[in-house]
Amino acid sequence: MSALTTAARGVFVIAVTPFHPDGRIDIESCDRMVDFYLETGATGLTVLGMMGEAPKLTISESCDVVARILKRVGGRVPVVVGVSAPGFAQIDTLTRAVMDLGAAGVMVAPPGSLRTDDQIVNYYTQVADTLGEVPFVLQDFPLVTGVQMSPKVIARIVNDLPTCVCLKHEDWPGLEKISVLRAEGMLKRPLSILCGNGGLFLPEEMGRGADGAMTGFAYPEMMVQVVDLYSKDDMTRAQDIFDAYLPLARFEQQPGLGLAIRKYTLARRGVIAHDSLRRPGAPLTERTRAEVDQLIARQEKRLKELN
Amino acid sequence: MSALTTAARGVFVIAVTPFHPDGRIDIESCDRMVDFYLETGATGLTVLGMMGEAPKLTISESCDVVARILKRVGGRVPVVVGVSAPGFAQIDTLTRAVMDLGAAGVMVAPPGSLRTDDQIVNYYTQVADTLGEVPFVLQDFPLVTGVQMSPKVIARIVNDLPTCVCLKHEDWPGLEKISVLRAEGMLKRPLSILCGNGGLFLPEEMGRGADGAMTGFAYPEMMVQVVDLYSKDDMTRAQDIFDAYLPLARFEQQPGLGLAIRKYTLARRGVIAHDSLRRPGAPLTERTRAEVDQLIARQEKRLKELN
Amino acid sequence: MSALTTAARGVFVIAVTPFHPDGRIDIESCDRMVDFYLETGATGLTVLGMMGEAPKLTISESCDVVARILKRVGGRVPVVVGVSAPGFAQIDTLTRAVMDLGAAGVMVAPPGSLRTDDQIVNYYTQVADTLGEVPFVLQDFPLVTGVQMSPKVIARIVNDLPTCVCLKHEDWPGLEKISVLRAEGMLKRPLSILCGNGGLFLPEEMGRGADGAMTGFAYPEMMVQVVDLYSKDDMTRAQDIFDAYLPLARFEQQPGLGLAIRKYTLARRGVIAHDSLRRPGAPLTERTRAEVDQLIARQEKRLKELN
Amino acid sequence: MSALTTAARGVFVIAVTPFHPDGRIDIESCDRMVDFYLETGATGLTVLGMMGEAPKLTISESCDVVARILKRVGGRVPVVVGVSAPGFAQIDTLTRAVMDLGAAGVMVAPPGSLRTDDQIVNYYTQVADTLGEVPFVLQDFPLVTGVQMSPKVIARIVNDLPTCVCLKHEDWPGLEKISVLRAEGMLKRPLSILCGNGGLFLPEEMGRGADGAMTGFAYPEMMVQVVDLYSKDDMTRAQDIFDAYLPLARFEQQPGLGLAIRKYTLARRGVIAHDSLRRPGAPLTERTRAEVDQLIARQEKRLKELN
Repeated sequence: MSALTTAARGVFVIAVTPFHPDGRIDIESCDRMVDFYLETGATGLTVLGMMGEAPKLTISESCDVVARILKRVGGRVPVVVGVSAPGFAQIDTLTRAVMDLGAAGVMVAPPGSLRTDDQIVNYYTQVADTLGEVPFVLQDFPLVTGVQMSPKVIARIVNDLPTCVCLKHEDWPGLEKISVLRAEGMLKRPLSILCGNGGLFLPEEMGRGADGAMTGFAYPEMMVQVVDLYSKDDMTRAQDIFDAYLPLARFEQQPGLGLAIRKYTLARRGVIAHDSLRRPGAPLTERTRAEVDQLIARQEKRLKELN
Repeated sequence: MSALTTAARGVFVIAVTPFHPDGRIDIESCDRMVDFYLETGATGLTVLGMMGEAPKLTISESCDVVARILKRVGGRVPVVVGVSAPGFAQIDTLTRAVMDLGAAGVMVAPPGSLRTDDQIVNYYTQVADTLGEVPFVLQDFPLVTGVQMSPKVIARIVNDLPTCVCLKHEDWPGLEKISVLRAEGMLKRPLSILCGNGGLFLPEEMGRGADGAMTGFAYPEMMVQVVDLYSKDDMTRAQDIFDAYLPLARFEQQPGLGLAIRKYTLARRGVIAHDSLRRPGAPLTERTRAEVDQLIARQEKRLKELN
Repeated sequence: MSALTTAARGVFVIAVTPFHPDGRIDIESCDRMVDFYLETGATGLTVLGMMGEAPKLTISESCDVVARILKRVGGRVPVVVGVSAPGFAQIDTLTRAVMDLGAAGVMVAPPGSLRTDDQIVNYYTQVADTLGEVPFVLQDFPLVTGVQMSPKVIARIVNDLPTCVCLKHEDWPGLEKISVLRAEGMLKRPLSILCGNGGLFLPEEMGRGADGAMTGFAYPEMMVQVVDLYSKDDMTRAQDIFDAYLPLARFEQQPGLGLAIRKYTLARRGVIAHDSLRRPGAPLTERTRAEVDQLIARQEKRLKELN
Repeated sequence: MSALTTAARGVFVIAVTPFHPDGRIDIESCDRMVDFYLETGATGLTVLGMMGEAPKLTISESCDVVARILKRVGGRVPVVVGVSAPGFAQIDTLTRAVMDLGAAGVMVAPPGSLRTDDQIVNYYTQVADTLGEVPFVLQDFPLVTGVQMSPKVIARIVNDLPTCVCLKHEDWPGLEKISVLRAEGMLKRPLSILCGNGGLFLPEEMGRGADGAMTGFAYPEMMVQVVDLYSKDDMTRAQDIFDAYLPLARFEQQPGLGLAIRKYTLARRGVIAHDSLRRPGAPLTERTRAEVDQLIARQEKRLKELN
């Protein structure tokens, strides 16, 4: 597979990691999941992200999951692997392993201890040094990491480190950040901006200059359509589609709980065999499942009205 | 005005504090705002909340705003006043002042330093002791305060302190919290649960047993209708209405930025004279205003389709 | 009293706020405390700091305390007043009041929400704008505020804002920060650097280029002697004195608990009438008092050996 | 080696991890370090703690270090291994590996996301379930983890989970916590309490009922003597010894910087070959080294006076 570049666009779906109810990895579901994501129009996949329960896997499990997914993808789309870790030795080890397996690049979130502009820039300088020629995605997700990167800091990283090819934009609010980064003179070279936050601001993000999404709503087809319609300048249709999915997207975007909702929905759609999360991670209550079921029923009804 | 009780229900709108562009309080807009909120069906008002820019006011300004609003309300609905402060002396002073002016009760958020269950319970025990007979609203808003209260802790506070009559429920995710608090045996006496988060989960919150909302979307009529339709068991219509407003509600719920969007919308609707925030607080960019305008246009179109 | 300038040096003692056991301000003890601090050689006082329980006072109480202290000081040394508050209106009101009473300047800590370099610089730019000609002390205390200011950020503030005359240096570790700020070319104008952290690193701080201390150990004479001996190049004697007081200084520097220990010691020395803290703030246990008593006994013995 | 039990006492030194200047593990220095720690009187060792730069090691490096240290120790004292990790799979894998190698038990710090009492208890219940029969040390270090455990929560964990045999007590302030835990009726079975914080409160901790220390000052002989003298009721001599080392202990206890100071001192004493930290981790400046040198010279002089 060719390497990730600044030309990345479309929808890189953040893949879940399927588990059996007893906590073992459900490696068979990986195949069905890959097929599903590609059929819905994903232009890339991102595995072992925060929503991939990456920190709950051992290094050998991580490699197994990546290997299986890469094999099934078979080079049809680029696969990015999350390698965030407390130390550079761990980042290095996992990066070597997954690049050897055929990954297109890696994604690195900042450790929560970073505060000042210089600390953040220095950290990513060391990351780039560790990664060598491997292209990487800069993950900007303050709600979870606690690290706030100003547009100026992102620009310093992008301008200084040529292997930083993509920003996973996940600040909230973050629309102005896209506009500032896209303003004349801010970035000295191209940068792919793919947005997160479960697609909850995707229409506005596209309007501000994003290249697509890198996130994980259980109906990736919504994101694929919105990105596609924006590229065709059909904003009205894009927003109609978006609005139809919004009640569920909003529900799935509840911190912590959201992944269980996403897995429940994916299992309901037949994509993965079980909606299990590995511990820690409680199952959904009956009540929550009923709420999801009802949101999906309404969503289907609304989508029919739109066709 | 009679005191706030555990029977509080409906929609307590979190009032904004109107400013002139130069930062002075726009006291005239207070009247128009009160009229607007009551006309839309608010069953109560909450002033000097976080979204009321309370920390930016001096104590004498706070009293001026409360006095004007209470005068205009004229006892038609109960008015709750936010009195959160770093020290009990400040809480005490402001509480005495606003209760003398005719407030129905006060609201207290926890200081960010609280961590353990006992620390939280002890804090509210001291709050209740400071307030004496004044009824208070317990504000549970972890995203902003950083304080996480388990249902057990809330139950201890409610069961131990009879003047705690209402929970401003604003955890995210928070639906299970409502279910747990409403479960048999958890609370030993009635408690009003009014929900926040800009109404973004209002249908599900009502379904879980909430009594209404205490939050501040620029279209309070949405919340009034949703609460009303739920009380009439017309859930489908409630969700239709909710869904129509959701794209804007989602947009207004962006942390930090949301208040500027809310004020812009209220000014656009003619409720307040200016959309100014007091410093610190940047004005919206042209781009953001255009996004809001478009969301409102689509919202109006969708509402027409529903009628 | 003349205004605070970049020439501030020596020991600005952070004054406690004395209370009666029932929580009322003990205004009489203020006089005795002022006399004590000046007799021990303080070159300035700082009132309403974090260790002055400032957030527990109402605005009128704050003014009463400042007025009484300023009257007793009678212009003999400059008095700095802490005016940190969530909003500029509050900062402005308290600043006007205390400057009218004769304060020499004010001190402002950053609100905990600040993260990026630009956010911090913008905040202090607005502070300086609010204060007008009033000279101010920049308080850099990450352990408590959560705000990390790099030397570069401090330099930007100092170089841009001529009314920022003094840094209350309280980072931990913070010695390199002094060295970097004192390096050629970093600051474009003079700056007084007075150190905090209870004097726990005072010898090394003086060696790095600090001008003295602005903190509140119950034996200010230690800090006065250390600063004085350093200015006379008698480092050995300075460190001998420092070491003799270190066991108690270390004990007093326990977060949260430290102020109670300081007040107990000051009451034991006859400086203030009671060791009471205003709520919230628990009294010391018997055991802790006994530990303090024993540390003081050993300290006195050691000081005798040194003479 | 027999398993760690509630009878653990004395000084469990937190071992550093020695590196070559190029970042490779300096496996030869491990032997000399083990010899040194045991010669100074350590009754146990704790490896891969926070101060052992554990998060910077890959899993295979971690196992190599533990294997080498265990081999050199040769069963003379129990060795505890830090296994804190974001997920249970990682904890499980490392635990199995090090117990097979001959470790006496493991140590687990809580993840920073834990807030409420129940969350903390649930986490350790899952930890104990994951560990099976392996005895573990509960690490209570709020300054670094951000997790605050009340004595009540610690008691719940200890009383419910028989494999929790030891508390690494590192709260600050934390003396009252020891007293409360040692109070009649609080704990229903024995618990070893070993204290951290670089030994900075060791005399008072012993006086409150601690069983010793589990921390890492570069002069472990200080801690060994203090614990020993306390057990012989010679408090005066214990405090004399403590006071002599306090200036350096205080200097070594600077967050972040402390480990570099400790390694510099250990290298200076000939214990490890290099004072290198693995990235990220800056070397000491010349100035800091000079400060340490001077503190050591003064310490040696003072110790001579005491003999």
